[in-house]
Amino acid sequence: MTNAVTLDRAQQIVTAGRKEAEKIGVPMNIAVVDAGNNLAAFIRMDGAWLGSIEIAQNKAFTSRAFDMATKHLAPLAEPGQPLFGIESTNDGKVIIFGGGIPLKNGEHVVRAIGVSGGKPDQDHEVAKAAAAAF
Amino acid sequence: MTNAVTLDRAQQIVTAGRKEAEKIGVPMNIAVVDAGNNLAAFIRMDGAWLGSIEIAQNKAFTSRAFDMATKHLAPLAEPGQPLFGIESTNDGKVIIFGGGIPLKNGEHVVRAIGVSGGKPDQDHEVAKAAAAAF
Amino acid sequence: MTNAVTLDRAQQIVTAGRKEAEKIGVPMNIAVVDAGNNLAAFIRMDGAWLGSIEIAQNKAFTSRAFDMATKHLAPLAEPGQPLFGIESTNDGKVIIFGGGIPLKNGEHVVRAIGVSGGKPDQDHEVAKAAAAAF
Amino acid sequence: MTNAVTLDRAQQIVTAGRKEAEKIGVPMNIAVVDAGNNLAAFIRMDGAWLGSIEIAQNKAFTSRAFDMATKHLAPLAEPGQPLFGIESTNDGKVIIFGGGIPLKNGEHVVRAIGVSGGKPDQDHEVAKAAAAAF
Repeated sequence: MTNAVTLDRAQQIVTAGRKEAEKIGVPMNIAVVDAGNNLAAFIRMDGAWLGSIEIAQNKAFTSRAFDMATKHLAPLAEPGQPLFGIESTNDGKVIIFGGGIPLKNGEHVVRAIGVSGGKPDQDHEVAKAAAAAF
Repeated sequence: MTNAVTLDRAQQIVTAGRKEAEKIGVPMNIAVVDAGNNLAAFIRMDGAWLGSIEIAQNKAFTSRAFDMATKHLAPLAEPGQPLFGIESTNDGKVIIFGGGIPLKNGEHVVRAIGVSGGKPDQDHEVAKAAAAAF
Repeated sequence: MTNAVTLDRAQQIVTAGRKEAEKIGVPMNIAVVDAGNNLAAFIRMDGAWLGSIEIAQNKAFTSRAFDMATKHLAPLAEPGQPLFGIESTNDGKVIIFGGGIPLKNGEHVVRAIGVSGGKPDQDHEVAKAAAAAF
Repeated sequence: MTNAVTLDRAQQIVTAGRKEAEKIGVPMNIAVVDAGNNLAAFIRMDGAWLGSIEIAQNKAFTSRAFDMATKHLAPLAEPGQPLFGIESTNDGKVIIFGGGIPLKNGEHVVRAIGVSGGKPDQDHEVAKAAAAAF
């Protein structure tokens, strides 16, 4: 119980995300999953979209599920593209717009962050700022 | 038990929506959710589409989930647009065509209305008329 | 559009239920389904259990699904009894405790009411009072 | 964006719960929902059961859904008791063992906490300690 590296890191990350979201003035939902793709920490800022509670978590899930930022999935998921239809896999938890980022330790993805509440570009920026705390 | 502001307001809203729907001659399903996105009141007008019972409720849900009219979501959800795929989030309850409107008290969304039974434009008009009762 | 017998009746029923619930001082969720077992009207009284929004609707559904009061299902659903396991049928919408009542016109069930928010006995009483308005 | 009362309170609560869990030496998942029964904050302590991520959230959900501690639901949900079968309502999110507590401000439930990771008695104790921070 003395060793709480994963949770402490996860909380540093959501706190850093919150600061960035406050700076740009958009309330966000912010989630962090661990290497096993299980939720480690989550916050909803006051006034953040209720519909984004799930989306933030699913962006984190998606980033770890495919080890890439969610914003890279949208073009791949269009008709005629290699991952057409991927958003309906994994019980519908795959999000294909920006706001999810995997975090690496060397070669390995060790956690992922998902942010939702603004425009996908804003979500991605907040996720990047949160990732920088890691 | 003497204080029933939320329900009384919700019923005024559905009643106003019903009047507008009668005026344009299209039977509608009309739902109101509260600030916490929980159903407060619902009516189905005689002859209204059965398949719209759920859609009306989900339009109300969506309007509160993202604090915007549902008709603004469709263009954002197309391939290449920022929210491509959003309709498969939140257990498929996100509706991206017209008929849902959030209702604000100052800055805050305090309830939302969802209407379904006609063309999305008609649904939106009925929702607007209902909102005017608020 | 001038003929709104079903909705008007449904609203009379929920209003009568509301009055009874106010009399006993327990806020309730009250739902009415029509003969086709589709939702016709719903209200949540201020302060009523959020978890009962669905239960009230499902009690109405169950009463019409099996044309009997929901309180008669519990003993039938116990281990060793004829309907053991019935609560997991119909997508889990079958409620086996009191609060749902079918409404007959002669031989035929023409609608059903579901009430949830208090003890099942209270729910059943409110449903009965609501049914009396029919 | 300057007003973050809900999130700040939710984080105080999960932090207080974490301290109690560390004291008894059992890693826990801890969730807080707001008055509308939407997730406000969540933490998973290192080593906490992965299967309890959802249970902690569902305990918080259940406590707000029925405005009571989840440990009071088990005896009511047994065969022959008033709420037999309630655990299959609300999409299976109703948890009927200890670890969920509603938090009141005067008469009104304004949030709820759910804890999962130990024995239900331990979960309840941690939830109580967390509630004391409120």
